[in-house]
Amino acid sequence: MSDIATNFNDYRSRMNDKLLDEGSVTLKRIFNLDKLAYQKGILDVATKELLGLVASTVLRCDDCINYHLEKCFQEKLSKKQVMEALEIATVVEGSIVIPHLRRAYKFWEALENQNKTKL
Amino acid sequence: MSDIATNFNDYRSRMNDKLLDEGSVTLKRIFNLDKLAYQKGILDVATKELLGLVASTVLRCDDCINYHLEKCFQEKLSKKQVMEALEIATVVEGSIVIPHLRRAYKFWEALENQNKTKL
Amino acid sequence: MSDIATNFNDYRSRMNDKLLDEGSVTLKRIFNLDKLAYQKGILDVATKELLGLVASTVLRCDDCINYHLEKCFQEKLSKKQVMEALEIATVVEGSIVIPHLRRAYKFWEALENQNKTKL
Amino acid sequence: MSDIATNFNDYRSRMNDKLLDEGSVTLKRIFNLDKLAYQKGILDVATKELLGLVASTVLRCDDCINYHLEKCFQEKLSKKQVMEALEIATVVEGSIVIPHLRRAYKFWEALENQNKTKL
Amino acid sequence: MSDIATNFNDYRSRMNDKLLDEGSVTLKRIFNLDKLAYQKGILDVATKELLGLVASTVLRCDDCINYHLEKCFQEKLSKKQVMEALEIATVVEGSIVIPHLRRAYKFWEALENQNKTKL
Amino acid sequence: MSDIATNFNDYRSRMNDKLLDEGSVTLKRIFNLDKLAYQKGILDVATKELLGLVASTVLRCDDCINYHLEKCFQEKLSKKQVMEALEIATVVEGSIVIPHLRRAYKFWEALENQNKTKL
Repeated sequence: MSDIATNFNDYRSRMNDKLLDEGSVTLKRIFNLDKLAYQKGILDVATKELLGLVASTVLRCDDCINYHLEKCFQEKLSKKQVMEALEIATVVEGSIVIPHLRRAYKFWEALENQNKTKL
Repeated sequence: MSDIATNFNDYRSRMNDKLLDEGSVTLKRIFNLDKLAYQKGILDVATKELLGLVASTVLRCDDCINYHLEKCFQEKLSKKQVMEALEIATVVEGSIVIPHLRRAYKFWEALENQNKTKL
Repeated sequence: MSDIATNFNDYRSRMNDKLLDEGSVTLKRIFNLDKLAYQKGILDVATKELLGLVASTVLRCDDCINYHLEKCFQEKLSKKQVMEALEIATVVEGSIVIPHLRRAYKFWEALENQNKTKL
Repeated sequence: MSDIATNFNDYRSRMNDKLLDEGSVTLKRIFNLDKLAYQKGILDVATKELLGLVASTVLRCDDCINYHLEKCFQEKLSKKQVMEALEIATVVEGSIVIPHLRRAYKFWEALENQNKTKL
Repeated sequence: MSDIATNFNDYRSRMNDKLLDEGSVTLKRIFNLDKLAYQKGILDVATKELLGLVASTVLRCDDCINYHLEKCFQEKLSKKQVMEALEIATVVEGSIVIPHLRRAYKFWEALENQNKTKL
Repeated sequence: MSDIATNFNDYRSRMNDKLLDEGSVTLKRIFNLDKLAYQKGILDVATKELLGLVASTVLRCDDCINYHLEKCFQEKLSKKQVMEALEIATVVEGSIVIPHLRRAYKFWEALENQNKTKL
């Protein structure tokens, strides 16, 4: 089975491995830090993933949006919750965000379809 | 007939419909506001579209640039007028804009070709 | 009594009034939308304010950060919760955010002091 | 007589002179290019200044906004015309722009007051 | 022989020619300035290309990153040197840069492969 | 003796201490990473500081620019070298950078004056 969510994950982990092989300790720490920040703290993981999603959306990075959408999906956040977070991102950063909303929506559909196929 | 300008419009309106079906009243108002701002006021529609084009260009959003290029084309702005607006965007935001100029130029050619086919 | 939090609020509401007097219906709708998006929905107000705070931080707008810090304070979010949200913003957007963290911390202290004075 | 518009101009030209004294030919050309782009072409100067204003606003640079506000003022653009341009900037780039609108409004008032004093 | 590095260069020079044919003197000067700035000065060309690479990376422009990667490659900078520069970019601008690191790494591999083919 | 360079350093270290007292391990690691990245590697410290300066300039963060200017000064980089790096930043990111050049120049003068006073 092949879909955009699976392809994205394969590509991401293959390239991350290459980067970490070539990079110095600095890069390894950046990657570790990125994991550490989203672990359960006083804020729960779901809230942190929504924060990561909104940060990625206002900074308009599709790959980052997809990454956090998948984490939100795994955390059982509903489409409505995700949409509300994306709406705040759009109010803050304006209509320039709208093309990313379209692509985010498409990726969320891919996550839902991938999930159905697994059942 | 199929071309990048038509494909872009089809994709955009299909995904916008989905977004508006799922989003709350907030998203509907964002979309309405985006239309309202470009309607004739003290500034005419062509000037407003040039403003939208320059804003989209310095923020480096290809889909937004394409959207406003099409509106500029519909408003009968000439290629020279559009180029002058893009030049101001490039002076303000620097050489980082140049890759978007290349793609903007290609999209404008697609609009011209689409128009010839219609005649 | 005078402090940076009170001064900021006075200045903001005085200038907002002037803007809304001069602006068209477009500006009024932008301001209304900005309020609407942060009202209780499926996500609660405190979560939405954290989202607004993170969006403002990665976009590096001090006035916006201060505005959402005050809302977070009113929503009884703790300093630890706010710090965790700011940490995610810093991981996403990097060390360029650090000067804003320093100013955010100072503003949060002003909110705490203002609160003590009121008691 | 001393006011924020005059002070800003004095500071700007004093520092620009220093920069050009120390910089290479590259910097001189950047400064010349910045002047060249806003000269009358197929688009008139007033339209180009509105484009520069919107570019500066979505990129959220107060000094750049002030510079173009002053040029717009000299080109006899009305407050309503300037407000419409700023509204488009705010729709495109969202509520993150609002703090800059407040400061822009204040600078425009300074330009009006400076003008009254001259009469 | 066809590869992503060659294709990118072909596309870039073809579109640049079109842009310069249509644009005014302003655009020609922007393009010239972009060449001038990277010529040997007090800083050598390799250092300047690393500066251009880091600027392009924190601004998250893939085409600009690729352009400077190729120049770095021609200047005989090693993969380790390029990685260290990219790491600084990632520390400054945060994890939002990581997707661009993945694509940069892929482009560097294409440059290495293209080079092997030539030998 | 009191000057803008000294004041800036005092403020920065006082607030950093407060942040690190309140923040979690995530924040400590971000601060450590920021130091680690600029240590001597295959690239020397002076080159890395120029990279940090250019990154800070295109991202238009005055405090970050000042921080790296001071490091460049300590590394005995000349004003001419620093100006060339700033010129590349300005070519990449455009005239929007110019207000930051003016402030950077002023800070560099403060560093030179501070140095003379020490002798």
